[in-house]
Amino acid sequence: MGEFDLIERFFANSAKRPDVVLGIGDDAALITPPENHQLVITTDTLVEGVHFFADIPPAALGHKSLAVNLSDLAAMGAEPRWVTLAITLPSARMEWLEQFCQGFFELAEYYNVTLVGGDTTRGPLSITVTAHGVIPMEQALTRHQAQVGDWVYVTGSLGGSALALRHLQGQQRLSSEILEVLLQRHYYPQPRVLSGYGLRGVASSCIDLSDGLWADLGHVAKASGCSAKIQVNQLPIHPQVKLQCQNDDAIALALCGGEDYELCFTVPEAMKGSLDVALSYSGIEHCCVGQMIAGQGPVELWQGEQPYTCCHLQGWDHFS
Amino acid sequence: MGEFDLIERFFANSAKRPDVVLGIGDDAALITPPENHQLVITTDTLVEGVHFFADIPPAALGHKSLAVNLSDLAAMGAEPRWVTLAITLPSARMEWLEQFCQGFFELAEYYNVTLVGGDTTRGPLSITVTAHGVIPMEQALTRHQAQVGDWVYVTGSLGGSALALRHLQGQQRLSSEILEVLLQRHYYPQPRVLSGYGLRGVASSCIDLSDGLWADLGHVAKASGCSAKIQVNQLPIHPQVKLQCQNDDAIALALCGGEDYELCFTVPEAMKGSLDVALSYSGIEHCCVGQMIAGQGPVELWQGEQPYTCCHLQGWDHFS
Repeated sequence: MGEFDLIERFFANSAKRPDVVLGIGDDAALITPPENHQLVITTDTLVEGVHFFADIPPAALGHKSLAVNLSDLAAMGAEPRWVTLAITLPSARMEWLEQFCQGFFELAEYYNVTLVGGDTTRGPLSITVTAHGVIPMEQALTRHQAQVGDWVYVTGSLGGSALALRHLQGQQRLSSEILEVLLQRHYYPQPRVLSGYGLRGVASSCIDLSDGLWADLGHVAKASGCSAKIQVNQLPIHPQVKLQCQNDDAIALALCGGEDYELCFTVPEAMKGSLDVALSYSGIEHCCVGQMIAGQGPVELWQGEQPYTCCHLQGWDHFS
Repeated sequence: MGEFDLIERFFANSAKRPDVVLGIGDDAALITPPENHQLVITTDTLVEGVHFFADIPPAALGHKSLAVNLSDLAAMGAEPRWVTLAITLPSARMEWLEQFCQGFFELAEYYNVTLVGGDTTRGPLSITVTAHGVIPMEQALTRHQAQVGDWVYVTGSLGGSALALRHLQGQQRLSSEILEVLLQRHYYPQPRVLSGYGLRGVASSCIDLSDGLWADLGHVAKASGCSAKIQVNQLPIHPQVKLQCQNDDAIALALCGGEDYELCFTVPEAMKGSLDVALSYSGIEHCCVGQMIAGQGPVELWQGEQPYTCCHLQGWDHFS
């Protein structure tokens, strides 16, 4: 089976948004973007042995390769619309591709995202998705506009994905019921698209949590020319992480575990009152975990009035 | 050196178009697209051992990974504007990256294209570029609107890249002077962006030649619901291919060699007179090589009034 047949069979027949004039099948996709909107573009690669193990369920890989990109769009407050998929495969196994597509398209369809282009090549397993969203002019959430005094929030819960990864790496044994819950967090992260919509006009900055709260909030602080402090007792640690890990270890997972794909955002004091309403229709909890402070140093950790020391402080950097 | 430092050092400091509100450094790029234009998106992956050999000069790889994508935009008549680059590297070798970037950005700057996002990961060498262009509403060139009777043209010359590849594969020995000329074709294909502009409103269809004229014109014919015939004596075979190969072999390289990255386009009889003027400012030759005909079969080959038989008929399919 040649490249063209593969593409035809698996990727060309997905649903098409009405703004997609030409999808897969020409030299390039042709799209009519909405007026008075800006375009938001992001790309992420998942490589076997670096971002996932060879035995990842193909549906999970399909889901996750799209989800991590939609998460970046969510962090900008954007509405996801069009994606391209470059997939490199050691061989063209039909069953594998079917399951990959099932995971990919289930998420795409949920958010009305159309696959508009792709490339299928032979080689070591690797997936690159480029995702495109739109946002009304001047409404995008960025990293560089947090102000000293703004409150720091996160959506959902932290540390669950990292604990599942520990199990997969053989570092901590979990029972099958607990693993099932946590693998959902690791394999099927839910991009906080609706939370991102709600934060337009409310948050002063936003980032998605791929490297861990400590490192990612550090990116926001650095880009905004200030620092931040986190109250570790306020962290929304995943309930199973609390149960399965010692307290300091649970905090370390929540701060540095990575791959939570929640949103971390800052809200000025004056907008705090609007936040509950703004996020009410997203269906996702949010929780204040700290505050932006003056300074240039790394993000500070506090436990009440006491500085808190965490021995695992590092970002999740696949390339170091 | 970590992923973030790498990205910072090599990719973040490139020139930014004024329509790029946020480039590399946030969760996603933010762009203000022009009004009354459509968006054109394409993506292509180059994998070591499949699309290039391990010893490819890094500058050539940088150039080519962008060029093959700009070529797709050119085939739509689009103006290239923004690209993302996902690069997977076995190790972070500074000299290699510098040369890769030199090849990539020299081409990007020539066409005023801004790198707006990227992902750098560790793994087997692979490059995925997603390129974005714009085109005034309703002016895009497509594959499916060729009509029976339209004339078939190609830009530039054919077969040069494929002959260089033969040398690299050890199948045909070329002298160093000749190789130098042909490796330019193979390593540094020039996307026919200006030709694409010129063809707006003149060509009825267009495709870029990555798989070879015979296969690519076949895609146009199939998409347009007709067939085509090529006059093999009219093919603009690269002069060095004519000199180094027997006549039938030269024709086979021009028809099936692949990776010429010229444009193949169709022009209605009524527009033939406009063509020379339309393409005059591109600086690239064009040449009529055949005509669209009724039928559903594969593209026919003719030598004057006689059917021509080529024993090498196949497209360049990396995945078969």
